[in-house]
Amino acid sequence: MKTKKLTISLISVLLFSATGFAQIPILKDYNSPVPKVVTPARVTPDGGIPAPSDAISLFNGTDLSEWTGSKGAPEWAVHDGMFTTVEKTGDLNSKREFGDFQLHIEWMHPADITGEGQMRGNSGIFLHGLYEIQVLETFNNNNKTYVNGQAGAIYKQHSPLVNPLRPPGEWNSYDIIFSAPTFNADGTYRTNPRVTVLLNGILIQNNAVIYGATRTETVVEKTRGGLQLQDHGCKVSYRNIWVREL
Amino acid sequence: MKTKKLTISLISVLLFSATGFAQIPILKDYNSPVPKVVTPARVTPDGGIPAPSDAISLFNGTDLSEWTGSKGAPEWAVHDGMFTTVEKTGDLNSKREFGDFQLHIEWMHPADITGEGQMRGNSGIFLHGLYEIQVLETFNNNNKTYVNGQAGAIYKQHSPLVNPLRPPGEWNSYDIIFSAPTFNADGTYRTNPRVTVLLNGILIQNNAVIYGATRTETVVEKTRGGLQLQDHGCKVSYRNIWVREL
Amino acid sequence: MKTKKLTISLISVLLFSATGFAQIPILKDYNSPVPKVVTPARVTPDGGIPAPSDAISLFNGTDLSEWTGSKGAPEWAVHDGMFTTVEKTGDLNSKREFGDFQLHIEWMHPADITGEGQMRGNSGIFLHGLYEIQVLETFNNNNKTYVNGQAGAIYKQHSPLVNPLRPPGEWNSYDIIFSAPTFNADGTYRTNPRVTVLLNGILIQNNAVIYGATRTETVVEKTRGGLQLQDHGCKVSYRNIWVREL
Amino acid sequence: MKTKKLTISLISVLLFSATGFAQIPILKDYNSPVPKVVTPARVTPDGGIPAPSDAISLFNGTDLSEWTGSKGAPEWAVHDGMFTTVEKTGDLNSKREFGDFQLHIEWMHPADITGEGQMRGNSGIFLHGLYEIQVLETFNNNNKTYVNGQAGAIYKQHSPLVNPLRPPGEWNSYDIIFSAPTFNADGTYRTNPRVTVLLNGILIQNNAVIYGATRTETVVEKTRGGLQLQDHGCKVSYRNIWVREL
Repeated sequence: MKTKKLTISLISVLLFSATGFAQIPILKDYNSPVPKVVTPARVTPDGGIPAPSDAISLFNGTDLSEWTGSKGAPEWAVHDGMFTTVEKTGDLNSKREFGDFQLHIEWMHPADITGEGQMRGNSGIFLHGLYEIQVLETFNNNNKTYVNGQAGAIYKQHSPLVNPLRPPGEWNSYDIIFSAPTFNADGTYRTNPRVTVLLNGILIQNNAVIYGATRTETVVEKTRGGLQLQDHGCKVSYRNIWVREL
Repeated sequence: MKTKKLTISLISVLLFSATGFAQIPILKDYNSPVPKVVTPARVTPDGGIPAPSDAISLFNGTDLSEWTGSKGAPEWAVHDGMFTTVEKTGDLNSKREFGDFQLHIEWMHPADITGEGQMRGNSGIFLHGLYEIQVLETFNNNNKTYVNGQAGAIYKQHSPLVNPLRPPGEWNSYDIIFSAPTFNADGTYRTNPRVTVLLNGILIQNNAVIYGATRTETVVEKTRGGLQLQDHGCKVSYRNIWVREL
Repeated sequence: MKTKKLTISLISVLLFSATGFAQIPILKDYNSPVPKVVTPARVTPDGGIPAPSDAISLFNGTDLSEWTGSKGAPEWAVHDGMFTTVEKTGDLNSKREFGDFQLHIEWMHPADITGEGQMRGNSGIFLHGLYEIQVLETFNNNNKTYVNGQAGAIYKQHSPLVNPLRPPGEWNSYDIIFSAPTFNADGTYRTNPRVTVLLNGILIQNNAVIYGATRTETVVEKTRGGLQLQDHGCKVSYRNIWVREL
Repeated sequence: MKTKKLTISLISVLLFSATGFAQIPILKDYNSPVPKVVTPARVTPDGGIPAPSDAISLFNGTDLSEWTGSKGAPEWAVHDGMFTTVEKTGDLNSKREFGDFQLHIEWMHPADITGEGQMRGNSGIFLHGLYEIQVLETFNNNNKTYVNGQAGAIYKQHSPLVNPLRPPGEWNSYDIIFSAPTFNADGTYRTNPRVTVLLNGILIQNNAVIYGATRTETVVEKTRGGLQLQDHGCKVSYRNIWVREL
């Protein structure tokens, strides 16, 4: 059909005349190697680990004043010194932006969690709003899903080295050290973003090379950015979120 | 149904009991940014650049004794101090293996070359037999193809920074510095392979991170390997091939 | 004079025929920039953080069976679930060796500590027996000493990024991620050792390049090694020492 | 004298209360391992390698208009398509500055060169005006000097991997790939400068970590800088100097 051909033709032109979009490999899910389960010691006192004196706290236990919602004011539920996703109210974005940083953040799934695979407690922490450290209920590898989509993965890029998750109803903590990318003049990476992650005190990402943003196939030229907490339609709670810019 | 459940169950076991196959991102072709054309100076004297005193020469100008063919004895044509692909006779593999190395290699397309896109003078140099530095006739960007598939690309991973190719009938030279990967116990990369490439004396890959092997989606755990020259059914000639192991 | 010439000649021969000793820059003390004081939150429950399920514990709270002394059997004092230096009995060396690893280790100075500068609670943790992460009583920067010699320094190489120390009488904890060096054929570094350190949960070394061993000016060609705890004639206690080989 | 003492005292106070001066290890000379001598092939045609189409040429063969002298107008002697040091007229500094770059530069010592050690044909190329790639007449290791002070060394930091020098009276060529440092907020290196060097086509520095500037013990916080050619009171000639900013 003529119309169809023309459309395809136009798309081709668009594709081949593009100039500014350095691209990244396609991210895919895979199923091995399966991270070993590790049982961490009880690493945090009750109440978790609040901010040290030089950190910026992104949650004071009582309001979401450091955040905006992707659909307007943030509507997640603040209660008991934590806040919890409210389905379909959208992602939260931190008002502040950072370059290189150390991030501490704690998260918990409800003890009576249901769902399977990527619909079991799915959320995520997007560094610079771009690079997702996965949040999912995958305690003890019981919830079968692709290994680079389980908790602690740099989503679809790097599985966690091991799986030191706590069970639903208990708090998990991430300590994340993020090195921002640098860029060449043509928009490609001069140096890729890098990330080191400890989950419950156990190293799960070791200065890993991030190939690119989680939700786009083009390189995004940003040297500073905020945090985004994902509403994936699942229940998960957060507390003790603080950032030390490096 | 019982049968179905059993099948699913078996598949699960297969999927989740696999352990040895760390995987890499899917490589894809893309079309921007388009490398700028650069006209290099005449960098080599007639006859090209033979091996320095501490290099291993992989071609003495007269025979293919340093190579095996992927289908048996190497059948590429030696003539005039060079050797030229003979279609369908298969790839050439160096008998020797290397870890980190500096490689010099010169290649030329015939002046009367025909073909388009990936069928115009396609060949490639596979470092450690795994990671392809593309050989293609893309002088002056005249031959339209995806940018990470043109000459100087780490095939489908990184476009060349610029395009300093000479026209068909003239020799091109690669100077390649390769750093072998190191591996974690689970077979994932501890450090990715890295490569720096000069094409006709112009930097086209700057210590680029190689995401994985060109022809497989799993990480190949090799710290030493040979060179492979690809028979892609196109005519291309090589000469002055030498390696300095680092 | 003839004799003199001959001597010089011999010295020349000795100097220039040496082959095995790649050397490193001289390490020196310096006094700025002074790390900012940070007050960490209470990060550990009473008793500290014991080993996770996949770690090798190097101290079970009751004996020093995982250690040898530099002068024979280890003579440091085990008491109250910790062990404490006994002056002049020498360093402790772990029996086990590791390549890349995550190390957790807790240390405390006595509340009634005395001494100044490098004689105030000096000890150190030598990674691979070579690269010292400094232990010193420098709470609140009260104890004046060179900044790359205070607690958290890679001794005489890199000051800690900040100073999050607890006061004498309270436990400090190190979480250390060490990447072993790799070597060129001539004994020089192919890649330097690297280390990331958190002190009381605060990042103080960020994938820092280690220039070389602390106590020698030549590169030591080791890819695996043990831990060494230094007897520097000062009182300091250790507990909860565990290693996860990576 | 009283006044003098007071002055010194004040200087001390200033030195030790300074906060902005991150420091680097002391650089020293050493004598092993001795780089192997390599005889390179004849890599350049007569006249050397002029600039490719996208490079900035810093010498057109006829004048020094791209340079300033450290003592005023540049007084080095232009002749025969090259320029030659004129003793005691000072260093040359390029007018232009660069960030990351590829530099090509050719240099030659007179066939009748005299002098020994560091006084035999000494000059140097200071990248960003700070980091010296040594120029010295050390053909065949005949001129005895410390190994990290011979031609191709990152002065007092890294010896060349091998010694592929040509004899006095013949041109040498450097191809240098420089990655500028990045900095932490406190003025320390976030990432050190890095350099790869080919001398006469042979790899002599492989993405080497530069510890700091050659002539100062403090980190200099510069992300762009020019080139400096050193007048060390010795005779040496330069030609074909071009830079491609990356």
